Amino acid sequence: MTRTGVLELSLQQVSVPEPAADEVVVRVQAAPINPSDLGLLLGPVDPTNLTSSGSGDDVVIRGQVPEAILQAFAARIDQSMPVGNEGAGSVIKTGTSDAARALKGRLVAMIGGGMYATHRVIKASDCLPLPDNVTAAQGASCFVNPLTALGMVETMRREGHKGLVHTAAASNLGQMLNRICVKDGIPLVNIVRNAAQEALLRKLGAAHVIDSSAPGFMNDLSQAVHDTRATIAFDAIGGGTLASRILTAMEAAINRSAKVYSRYGSDTHKQVYIYGNLDLGQTVLARGIGMAWGIGGWLLFPFLQRIGATDAARLRQRVLDELTTTFASHYTKTVSLRGALAPENIRIYGKRATGEKYLIDPSKSD
Amino acid sequence: MTRTGVLELSLQQVSVPEPAADEVVVRVQAAPINPSDLGLLLGPVDPTNLTSSGSGDDVVIRGQVPEAILQAFAARIDQSMPVGNEGAGSVIKTGTSDAARALKGRLVAMIGGGMYATHRVIKASDCLPLPDNVTAAQGASCFVNPLTALGMVETMRREGHKGLVHTAAASNLGQMLNRICVKDGIPLVNIVRNAAQEALLRKLGAAHVIDSSAPGFMNDLSQAVHDTRATIAFDAIGGGTLASRILTAMEAAINRSAKVYSRYGSDTHKQVYIYGNLDLGQTVLARGIGMAWGIGGWLLFPFLQRIGATDAARLRQRVLDELTTTFASHYTKTVSLRGALAPENIRIYGKRATGEKYLIDPSKSD
Repeated sequence: MTRTGVLELSLQQVSVPEPAADEVVVRVQAAPINPSDLGLLLGPVDPTNLTSSGSGDDVVIRGQVPEAILQAFAARIDQSMPVGNEGAGSVIKTGTSDAARALKGRLVAMIGGGMYATHRVIKASDCLPLPDNVTAAQGASCFVNPLTALGMVETMRREGHKGLVHTAAASNLGQMLNRICVKDGIPLVNIVRNAAQEALLRKLGAAHVIDSSAPGFMNDLSQAVHDTRATIAFDAIGGGTLASRILTAMEAAINRSAKVYSRYGSDTHKQVYIYGNLDLGQTVLARGIGMAWGIGGWLLFPFLQRIGATDAARLRQRVLDELTTTFASHYTKTVSLRGALAPENIRIYGKRATGEKYLIDPSKSD
Repeated sequence: MTRTGVLELSLQQVSVPEPAADEVVVRVQAAPINPSDLGLLLGPVDPTNLTSSGSGDDVVIRGQVPEAILQAFAARIDQSMPVGNEGAGSVIKTGTSDAARALKGRLVAMIGGGMYATHRVIKASDCLPLPDNVTAAQGASCFVNPLTALGMVETMRREGHKGLVHTAAASNLGQMLNRICVKDGIPLVNIVRNAAQEALLRKLGAAHVIDSSAPGFMNDLSQAVHDTRATIAFDAIGGGTLASRILTAMEAAINRSAKVYSRYGSDTHKQVYIYGNLDLGQTVLARGIGMAWGIGGWLLFPFLQRIGATDAARLRQRVLDELTTTFASHYTKTVSLRGALAPENIRIYGKRATGEKYLIDPSKSD
């Protein structure tokens, strides 16, 4: 990003360094474009308002960061930042350590950034060898979405809630969460943004699906929250009034069974965690939800650190065990690195729409 | 409150029951009108728009709850609700238990509601005998404000913060908190709403006082938060953008020393607890504060339950030890019960303005 807020996207030709003793070189074959990647790749730039110059591998895409929020990106100015949280590929070279050598020739999943690249040099300990029956595309998304979905359920349990609410619930992540909850018998309220998404989730066996664009939304939400006793929500949207409406519905559901008036509202704690930023606008909270409520940010990696290595490993093992069932990802399109920079593709994956999920295959040439 | 949202305030003649074995009868001599009492007494009723009928002890004051929020008060309809969280007075009669008899003739502070009354029958265990050198007026406010102020400091420590921010900081509670922080060496940023309040707090030895009505507010706040390393705030206002601006200032202060850009913002948790409702409007949160933040309600009694009996007793003992110094309250006017229902008084104390604190002396006749 330049000092005047011009964000530049380009491909860089770099040489692949020799792996250190505990490292391996992976030929990347699949890396998803997750919403969390878009935060770094595009940030607040409007994906429908980009310019393109150069051609082939020398193409440069430019977009403008709105001046009003430029200050928040001060630390990004003049920095070249590789993108891609996670991916999968084949180990083509290893360092001399036993752990590195054990991965020779294996298909591995990786986490750690910089995955939108033909090759990635990475610590052996940051690789997860994939089972034999799994492809790179299937293994490419085995960290961010699966662990986030499991993290939601884990957070619900640790903080003493009995059921949960999820927004943007028809997303890849939402479908995973729904599968986990169906399998584990956890009451889940899925909030979606249109009737097609509602139909999709119902087909997947979801018991409670509420369309926020429907006229009876607040009543339906209040009823579903009452039926499930959900008092914690994970919200991918962030801006607007949805988080507030969820808290209001929870408070209303709890107060249905209240015997006496309490000026402080119910004493049951109601929590919304914002884990995504589909709407970058202001979050607006109406009052009248009592005093026992909280809202805050939720992020996967600090969560994994908080729960500690043993519990994090338990979650990772479950992902591997159910990678092609509970944690299967679906992609609408696979593109090359060059294709990922094509304005017509950025326009689609950049709008962060549910059901438009891209996979990059850096081994692919256009 | 009636079904149509008319809130009625009146005095009721009731007979004082005989105390049970573990109870005492207290002749109430002082009970403060705290913001938390106003929540019950007036709720959302406009204190400048009241009607009055009858006279003397038979006066009835009426005000209207806005229809848009009437639903939130459903449980209050047709309920007669005594008011007054805390107070002090003399024990004039006791039950037969040893604990009750030990209080005979003593001046006690009480918590438990219904203190706006000439007499209060109460459990001996809900009374705190006051030291000999303390008057009823001095002892009347020894629960809510002192324990709330101590609760803020205790919460700060328990949640791992190094300094704190307080809003509406020139209030009785704010002055107490300032005295605690000066005494205990805790970095405190006081946010006030005008220059007179700023001068008042500076006179009381506050190091950081920021006037939210001044043009350089955000810069000054950011600097003060940087200097104090405050990452937790207690907000009495609730509505509007102040909580959001505090989080923004905290994030900016932390990022001043950030070496590299993080798309998720700083990993230092920033917290705002809303403990009051001076502004009943929407709470509006701007984004750009990273993901490590929280905002939520904070209430004294659940807090005391959470920390447990031993720690709660430690806080109460400190209040008694410093009742006429650190925890001294100041009142602008003392009124009788009848005076508390005079529209010209309600208009003043009902506006919840800093520096307008009323004390009710039910033993006083007009």
